[in-house]
Amino acid sequence: MTSPVHSPLLERVMNLSAVSDLRAAAPTFDDDFHAADIAARMVWSSVVEPGDRVAHQLIGVLGPAGALRWLEVGEKVAIDLPDPADLPDPADLREGRSRWSARLEAGNVVAQLEAAARVGAQVVIPGDDVWPPGLCDLGNHAPHALWVRGDQTTLQRLTRSIAMVGARASTGYGEHVTMELVSGLVGRHFTIVSGAAYGIDGMAHRAALADEGDTIAVLAGGIDRLYPSGHDALLQRIIAMGAVVTEMPPGFSPTKWRFLQRNRLIAAMTRATVVVEAGWRSGSLNTAHHAVQLGRPLGVVPGPVTSASSAGCHRLLREEPATCVTTSEEIVELIDGFGTRESDALEDLSPGEQRALDALSDRARSVTELAVSSGMAPLDVQSALGLLDIRRLVEQTPTGWRRRRA
Amino acid sequence: MTSPVHSPLLERVMNLSAVSDLRAAAPTFDDDFHAADIAARMVWSSVVEPGDRVAHQLIGVLGPAGALRWLEVGEKVAIDLPDPADLPDPADLREGRSRWSARLEAGNVVAQLEAAARVGAQVVIPGDDVWPPGLCDLGNHAPHALWVRGDQTTLQRLTRSIAMVGARASTGYGEHVTMELVSGLVGRHFTIVSGAAYGIDGMAHRAALADEGDTIAVLAGGIDRLYPSGHDALLQRIIAMGAVVTEMPPGFSPTKWRFLQRNRLIAAMTRATVVVEAGWRSGSLNTAHHAVQLGRPLGVVPGPVTSASSAGCHRLLREEPATCVTTSEEIVELIDGFGTRESDALEDLSPGEQRALDALSDRARSVTELAVSSGMAPLDVQSALGLLDIRRLVEQTPTGWRRRRA
Repeated sequence: MTSPVHSPLLERVMNLSAVSDLRAAAPTFDDDFHAADIAARMVWSSVVEPGDRVAHQLIGVLGPAGALRWLEVGEKVAIDLPDPADLPDPADLREGRSRWSARLEAGNVVAQLEAAARVGAQVVIPGDDVWPPGLCDLGNHAPHALWVRGDQTTLQRLTRSIAMVGARASTGYGEHVTMELVSGLVGRHFTIVSGAAYGIDGMAHRAALADEGDTIAVLAGGIDRLYPSGHDALLQRIIAMGAVVTEMPPGFSPTKWRFLQRNRLIAAMTRATVVVEAGWRSGSLNTAHHAVQLGRPLGVVPGPVTSASSAGCHRLLREEPATCVTTSEEIVELIDGFGTRESDALEDLSPGEQRALDALSDRARSVTELAVSSGMAPLDVQSALGLLDIRRLVEQTPTGWRRRRA
Repeated sequence: MTSPVHSPLLERVMNLSAVSDLRAAAPTFDDDFHAADIAARMVWSSVVEPGDRVAHQLIGVLGPAGALRWLEVGEKVAIDLPDPADLPDPADLREGRSRWSARLEAGNVVAQLEAAARVGAQVVIPGDDVWPPGLCDLGNHAPHALWVRGDQTTLQRLTRSIAMVGARASTGYGEHVTMELVSGLVGRHFTIVSGAAYGIDGMAHRAALADEGDTIAVLAGGIDRLYPSGHDALLQRIIAMGAVVTEMPPGFSPTKWRFLQRNRLIAAMTRATVVVEAGWRSGSLNTAHHAVQLGRPLGVVPGPVTSASSAGCHRLLREEPATCVTTSEEIVELIDGFGTRESDALEDLSPGEQRALDALSDRARSVTELAVSSGMAPLDVQSALGLLDIRRLVEQTPTGWRRRRA
């Protein structure tokens, strides 16, 4: 493979010592192709807002480094394409270019990467062992990279995880119930994921830490600013014992939009979402909606109908396909029942999973082989295999992947 | 029509002044056929336990008076039948005869009727204007008669009614919520039906009375013994302002079986059942199951998961097709949504309703005409018409019943 020509920014980023630091915990790739891919994903993470569909499509066609070259060098790159018809709509691309170019200032990007390295963060990208397979279900709205502080291998335990979210304005009742439920889940080796907010979120993390369980906080802003500031000590403890992650690059503040996007990550990376207390318009209803849209089970803890802090929970029970849960056993049942349903119903597979499964047989195949036969990018194949593995539809052998026999 | 030969007991009962008293509030029938029918239903009500399918089948074929004659005079009556194949299985009939004969002691039956008349009760039978049309849905498990104290016209307002039931071991929370919900429902002119038990039931009746709303208590024992005794004053107030009903004749005590059967009446005679608080094995779960089996909407009020008095409610939310309700508006929506669904889905009709509807067209027909063309008993036609009327599928004109135009 001849060395691709990189964009000037990408060349500069690839030579940063900060980038090596940010990948210190990841397996190393000797080839230039992978190194460029990884660095380009970091840059894209800096350049786009969460959920930017057009950037996703572009990267899907050109690859992260190629897409970055298109953005920096100009539209003529597109003529190298096997089929330009795969590109996003030209009008979308023009708008995208103007959005992304504004942030494509080398000094800024480098400063962000160095800020991340300074706080000891790692960058995790699709295809990494620790990349949460559930994020695959976000399709064109998946993040390009995750910025992680703490032990990034905690992410591997997301295959057995619960998102436990709820109102900032929690009551003693909600906090007590959160503590009980989390304690039961941690005792069953579940990883507790939440948003580090005041109220139920904070209590969920605290309860997990108290029982020495795994916990992951997903932030809406940059990894260098622990938010909310009142939870600085809590977040430092999570970094020490679990992981704090975000898709926003350093320096970015948590805005309303980013909170909503953060919620989609919480719903996508976990096996089920449980809402403990929620006001009528609580942000945790948004996480719940994401869980439902992603086909994840949604558990809701009821409360007194006289409590405004439970009004959103009762609303979910009325308006969504939510299950009333009152104990940690019932939360586990939520997933067990769901897992069974999933493996029974192959039609529940995402397009990527279906294509990867179609390319598999009884004979073991390498990821590269599968990428060729499925027409998918190798990283997407790997993500899809991770998900199919959770569903127990495939298995990894020393010589590659194959379908699991019933 | 020649006057039928009645059984000795029926002749005696028909001549009792108590029987006239028990029908004082009903329209009078001059013909002997109707008088015998009414008296025979009272006797059957004394003789069978609630839900006796075989008695129902026998009465369906021979009529109440004919069936009684069969029971008293012997099996040879059966040879008068147009088609003996319609009779219940002979083994079932033999068992039935031994069950019923034991209670067929003239002195006892007369004493019961006189006891009922003494407490000012009325007897309501299928075909009466005030007969709750919902009881039709019980099919072969419908009661033969209802013993009523208070204003029997309250029963006519069951077309707009809610069963509000719950735990005897209620909490301040449950009682408060019951009061709020009932107050809202009474304000919308709903009749509140419950079982007069301690706890939620009693609070539902009290709240309805406090707002001068209609309320009906359904007892598991005889109409002459107000149970529980601690609710004697409450039941007297319900008699004064609403109605107390039971299918058990006077003198019968409320047993476990009769409570369960009473629950089916509460579920059947109302438009929806709402459970406010319920322990894990609360009797109100039984009422809820009956509501679901009868296709009635089931509303459940959640509570703290830490409260044992709400454990049954949360169980219903998990295990049954129950709707979480928190306000009286949400309870009304339960019925509105359901009513719409009903008139849309004609396949929801009971066999009796379907047969009656099939016999109807744009031309108005009398009940007798419909009985002939549908092959149903006139009283069953009348009950079915009542139900079809609630569903707004038929209408009554001066010359009889016809299908309602869309």
